[in-house]
Amino acid sequence: MTSYSAPLRDIRFVLHDMLDIESHYASIPAFAEVSADVADSVIEAAARFAENDLAPLNRIGDEEGCQFNDGVVTTPPGFKDAYAKFLELGFGALSAPVEYGGQGLPPSLGIVVGEMNGTANWSWGMYPGLSNGAIETIKAHGTEAQKQAYLPPMTTGRWTGTMCLTEAHAGSDLGLIRTKAEPRPDGAYAITGSKVFISAGEHDLAENIVHIVLARLPDAPKGTKGISLFVVPKYLAGADGGVGERNAVHCVGIEHKMGIRASATCSMNFEGATGYLIGPPNRGLQSMFTFMNAARVGTAVQGVCTAEGAFQGALHYARDRLAMRSLSGPKAPEEEADPIIVHPAVRSMLLTQKAFAEGGRVLVYWLATQIDIAEAAGTPDVRKQADDLMSLLTPIAKAFLTEMGCEAAKHGVQIYGGHGFIREWGMEQVVRDARISTLYEGTTEIQALDLLGRKVLQSQGELLKAFTKIIHKFCQANAEDPAMAEFVEPLAALNKAWGDISISIGMKAIMNRDEIGAAAVDYLYYSGYVTLAYIWAWTARTGLQKLQTAEGDAAFYQAKIQTAQFYYRRVLPRAQAHIEIIKGGREVIQQMDEAAFAF
Amino acid sequence: MTSYSAPLRDIRFVLHDMLDIESHYASIPAFAEVSADVADSVIEAAARFAENDLAPLNRIGDEEGCQFNDGVVTTPPGFKDAYAKFLELGFGALSAPVEYGGQGLPPSLGIVVGEMNGTANWSWGMYPGLSNGAIETIKAHGTEAQKQAYLPPMTTGRWTGTMCLTEAHAGSDLGLIRTKAEPRPDGAYAITGSKVFISAGEHDLAENIVHIVLARLPDAPKGTKGISLFVVPKYLAGADGGVGERNAVHCVGIEHKMGIRASATCSMNFEGATGYLIGPPNRGLQSMFTFMNAARVGTAVQGVCTAEGAFQGALHYARDRLAMRSLSGPKAPEEEADPIIVHPAVRSMLLTQKAFAEGGRVLVYWLATQIDIAEAAGTPDVRKQADDLMSLLTPIAKAFLTEMGCEAAKHGVQIYGGHGFIREWGMEQVVRDARISTLYEGTTEIQALDLLGRKVLQSQGELLKAFTKIIHKFCQANAEDPAMAEFVEPLAALNKAWGDISISIGMKAIMNRDEIGAAAVDYLYYSGYVTLAYIWAWTARTGLQKLQTAEGDAAFYQAKIQTAQFYYRRVLPRAQAHIEIIKGGREVIQQMDEAAFAF
Repeated sequence: MTSYSAPLRDIRFVLHDMLDIESHYASIPAFAEVSADVADSVIEAAARFAENDLAPLNRIGDEEGCQFNDGVVTTPPGFKDAYAKFLELGFGALSAPVEYGGQGLPPSLGIVVGEMNGTANWSWGMYPGLSNGAIETIKAHGTEAQKQAYLPPMTTGRWTGTMCLTEAHAGSDLGLIRTKAEPRPDGAYAITGSKVFISAGEHDLAENIVHIVLARLPDAPKGTKGISLFVVPKYLAGADGGVGERNAVHCVGIEHKMGIRASATCSMNFEGATGYLIGPPNRGLQSMFTFMNAARVGTAVQGVCTAEGAFQGALHYARDRLAMRSLSGPKAPEEEADPIIVHPAVRSMLLTQKAFAEGGRVLVYWLATQIDIAEAAGTPDVRKQADDLMSLLTPIAKAFLTEMGCEAAKHGVQIYGGHGFIREWGMEQVVRDARISTLYEGTTEIQALDLLGRKVLQSQGELLKAFTKIIHKFCQANAEDPAMAEFVEPLAALNKAWGDISISIGMKAIMNRDEIGAAAVDYLYYSGYVTLAYIWAWTARTGLQKLQTAEGDAAFYQAKIQTAQFYYRRVLPRAQAHIEIIKGGREVIQQMDEAAFAF
Repeated sequence: MTSYSAPLRDIRFVLHDMLDIESHYASIPAFAEVSADVADSVIEAAARFAENDLAPLNRIGDEEGCQFNDGVVTTPPGFKDAYAKFLELGFGALSAPVEYGGQGLPPSLGIVVGEMNGTANWSWGMYPGLSNGAIETIKAHGTEAQKQAYLPPMTTGRWTGTMCLTEAHAGSDLGLIRTKAEPRPDGAYAITGSKVFISAGEHDLAENIVHIVLARLPDAPKGTKGISLFVVPKYLAGADGGVGERNAVHCVGIEHKMGIRASATCSMNFEGATGYLIGPPNRGLQSMFTFMNAARVGTAVQGVCTAEGAFQGALHYARDRLAMRSLSGPKAPEEEADPIIVHPAVRSMLLTQKAFAEGGRVLVYWLATQIDIAEAAGTPDVRKQADDLMSLLTPIAKAFLTEMGCEAAKHGVQIYGGHGFIREWGMEQVVRDARISTLYEGTTEIQALDLLGRKVLQSQGELLKAFTKIIHKFCQANAEDPAMAEFVEPLAALNKAWGDISISIGMKAIMNRDEIGAAAVDYLYYSGYVTLAYIWAWTARTGLQKLQTAEGDAAFYQAKIQTAQFYYRRVLPRAQAHIEIIKGGREVIQQMDEAAFAF
C-alpha cells in the first residue's frame, strides 16, 4: 500500500499563482491579516498531520471499522489519539469565530486542510467535518444563549456535532420526515422519532455530541414547509461549560457499509429527548440551506481527494511494475520488461486522474474563496455575487467532481490489474470509500435537478449567465494569444452551446416539466466538463505566463499546459455526447409502461 | 435484499425468436438431437437451481468468505451442499463429451446455465466454471492416456480443475513467468515455483483438484516462446479411478479481496510437484489460446450477470420506494409520494441497465452459438468462419460487456441512494463482485490491444470486414422498412465509420506503433457500442416481425422495440465521443516526461 504525500507544490500553485490568495484575503476585512506565510504555515502543519497521523490509520480503519456494543460506538485503533492531536494542533477551531474560541481563519483554508485530511483518511475526516455543519447552523440561526452554550466547546472540538436529517423512508425527500417535537412547559421540546444514516451520531472521540435535528411541531403543515430545526445534545449543557444530564437520544446500531467503514453511520432513537428550537418554526429546511452549499462543497472536496489518492497510488505502481515492452520499442532495455507507465493506456488513465485531481482542486479552492466572500466580504453586493456563483457551481462541483473521483478510482484499480482487487494494495478501498460521495449530501441525480431546475431555469438563466459571462470574458481576453487558441476556441464554442441547450430545455419544459428530469443528469455532466475546461484553460494560461516570465520551475508549468492539452483532446470530447443525449429527448425514457420493464 | 428470478421469458426470446436455436443445433451433427424442448427443460431446471440453491447463498458467501487454515480452504456454509446437488442434477457434465462421461450438450447451453448461476452467485459459479478451462485444455491437447485419467472424474465434477498462469510479477505479461519444469527419469516433470491469483486452487468441494500449470523447461527460450503446459494434480491419479498419492503442490494463502469473497483466490506453491507435459514443449501459450476465447466469453457473461442482477435489484426498489412527486404531476396521489420509477433519471438508469443486460445476453448467446459451430460443425470452412467471428467479437464482448456491467452495477447503487451503500441491501456487493470482471482474463486495456492490434490490424482488417459485412447486409435488408429507419440509418453510418477509423489508425501506426496503444481503449468502446447497436437493431426487427404476425405477447415485443429506441437515442451517442477522442491523438498522451507526472 502506498503512503500519502500532500501535494503541497500544487496546492501552493493554486492558492498563490492562480487565486492570489493573499490579495483575496486582503480584500475581506475579517481576513485581512492572513498573509501568504500564515496560510502556508497552516497548510504545511496540516500536511504533516495528514501524512504522519492520519494516513497510517487509513487501512486499519477500513479493516477494523467501528464497533457497536449496547449503544456505545468504538472507533478504530488510533482514531481517538489522532483526534486529540488534531485539537491540540488547533485544527478543530481553524475557521470558527474568534469570539467563540475559534481561530477565525478563512473557510477556504479549512477546505485545503479538509482535502489533505480526506485524502489521507476520509473516514476520520468525517468526525470533525460533520461538526462544521452543526457549528454553522448554530452560528447562523441560534440565539445568543445557544451560541454561548454550544459554540465554545464545539469550535474547540471538545464536543462534536451531527446533522440528523434522514429517516428510513425519507432521504432525498425530506418532506416525508415524521420525527415529532412537542412543546414542553419549560420552553424546550420533547423530540421523538428515529433517524438513520447519522454520520458521527455516536463515537468515543469527544465528551459530548450535539445533534441538529429536523422534526415536526404538532401543528406543522405537511411536507417541506412544516419542518423545524432543533438542537438536541447527547448530554445537556452543564452550568460550568461541562456536560450535564444524559439526554434521551441513543444510538441503536451502526450500518455495515461498502466503504468509509471507520466512519460511524448511526441509527439514532430520540425518545422524548430534550431539544431546543433553533431558527423560526416550520422554516427548518430554509435554515439548512444556508449551510448546505458549504457542506456540498465539502463533499465536492471528496471528489478531489479520491482522484488525488487514486492518482498517487496508481502513479507509484505504474513506475514500479514491469510488464511488456512499449509498442514503439523497449524503454527500459536493462529490465526484463518496461515499467507500465510507458503504455499509452496506462498514461491515459494517469493523465485522466491528474486532470480531475488538479482541475478539481482549482475548482473547489476557487469555490472556497467564494465562500469566504459570501460569508465575510464588506459589501452586500459583493457577498451576493459570490453567493450566486456558489449557488450555480456547487451542484456542479459536488456531483461532477465526485463522479469523476469515482472514475479516477476505477482507473487506479485498473492500473494495478489483479492487484487492484486485493485489499492489501489499498486501491479497492479508494473505490469503496469514494462510492458514498455520489450518494450523500444529495445524489448526483438530485444535484442535477438542483442545477437545472432550481438554479438555471428558476433564475431564468441569470445564475448561469453570470458564469458564462466570466468564461466569455476569459475567451475574449485571450483571443489574440496563439498559444491559447487550442483552449479558447473549443471553450468559447462549448460556452455558447451551454446557453443554447439551457434555453432549448427551458422551452421544452414549458410544455412538459418532465423534460427537466430527462435532461438534468446529462446537463450536469455537460456543465461539469465545460466548467473544468474553463479551469484548465485558466490553468494553462497561468502556466504560459509563468513560463514567459521565467518564474519558478519550468517543468512544473509545462506539465500544467500538457495536462490541459490532454484534457482538451482526450476528455472534453465527451461533452458533446451529453448534448446529443439530451437531444435524444424525453419520450424514449417515459414511453415504457412500468409493467413492461420486466416480464 | 432482493432475490434472483431467472429471466426465462427473455432467455427463450433470445434462443428461439432471435437465434432459432433448434435449427442451429440441427445444422451441427453432434447436436442434431437437441430439440427446443430439451434445451428448454435443461434451462428451466438450471433456473430452479440458481434461484433456490445458489441465490440464497450469495450474501452469506460474501459475509463469511472462504477461510484458510494451514493449507486447507473452507468454502462458506452451503457451498459444498450446493455443489453436490449441482453434480447430482447433472449440470457438472453438461457440455462435456459423452465418451468421458459428459452429457455432450452444446457449449451454448452451458453459457445459458452459466449466466443464471453467475447472476445468482458469481463466487459459487467460479468453481465449476474454472473446471471447464482445464477440461477443454486436456480435451484439446492431452494424450489419450491423459484424457482417460483426468476427463471422466473432471467431467462428472468429482474432481475440479484450475488454470495456473499468473505469478506475482507476471500477470498481463506471461512471458515473464519463472516456474520451472525439470524432466525426471520417469518421463514426468518436477514443477517448482509460485503462482498467485489461482481461482479454486484449493477448496473443499471436490476430492481432487487438477492444475494446468504454465512453466519453463530447462532449455526453454526466453519470453512467451519458452512456456510449456503441464498437468499437476493435487492427488496423483489412482489406479482405480480414485485418488492416489498427495502431490507436492500446496495452497499457502488466499487473497482478501474487494469482491467474489466466496471464491478462493489462492497462492500456490509447487515444490518439485509431479507434473505431466501436455501439448508440445514451449508451445504452452499457443495451446492456451485454443480455449482462451471460450474462457473470455465466459467472463463476458459476467457482464450480463452484473447488469441483470443490478437491474433486478434496482427495478424492485424503484417500484417500491416512494420519494417526491413526478415533475409533471402526482402519479400515485393516494400515496405520500410517487414511487421513484416515475422520475426520468431513475428510469434512464433502469433502461440503461436493461439495454446492457438484454443486449449483452443476445451478444453472448450469439457468440456461444459460434463456439458450438467452431467446435463441432461438419465442415472446416464453416468452423473457420465461426472461429474468425468469435476471434473478433470476443475481446469486444469480454471488455465492453464487463465495463457496461460495472456501469449497470453503479446505477443499481445510485437508484438505492444511501441504501445502496449498505451491505444488507445487496447492491454494493454487485459492484464489488463485478469489479474483478474488467481485470481478470485480460484487463480491458489488454482486450483493447488484442482487438485493435492482433485482431483488426494484424488481419489487415479481414476479421473486422467479416462482421461489418454482416451489419451492412442487415442494413441493406431492412433499408426499405420505415419502422426500421430509426435504427438502420445510424447503424449504417456507425458501421462505415468503424471501417474508416480502423484504416486511419492503421495508417498512423505505420509511422508510430504507439498509435495503436493510444487508440485501443476508445476503439474498443466504439466497437462495443456499434456491436450492441447491431444487436438492438436485430432485436427491434425481431420484435417488429412478431408484432406484425401477432405472435405471442405484444407488450413484450413492444418493450424490446422501446428499449432499442432508448439505446439508440440515449446511449449510442457516446460512440461518437470515442471517435473524437481517438482523433485527439497520441501526442498529448506521450509528451509528458515521466518525472513530470507529479512534483
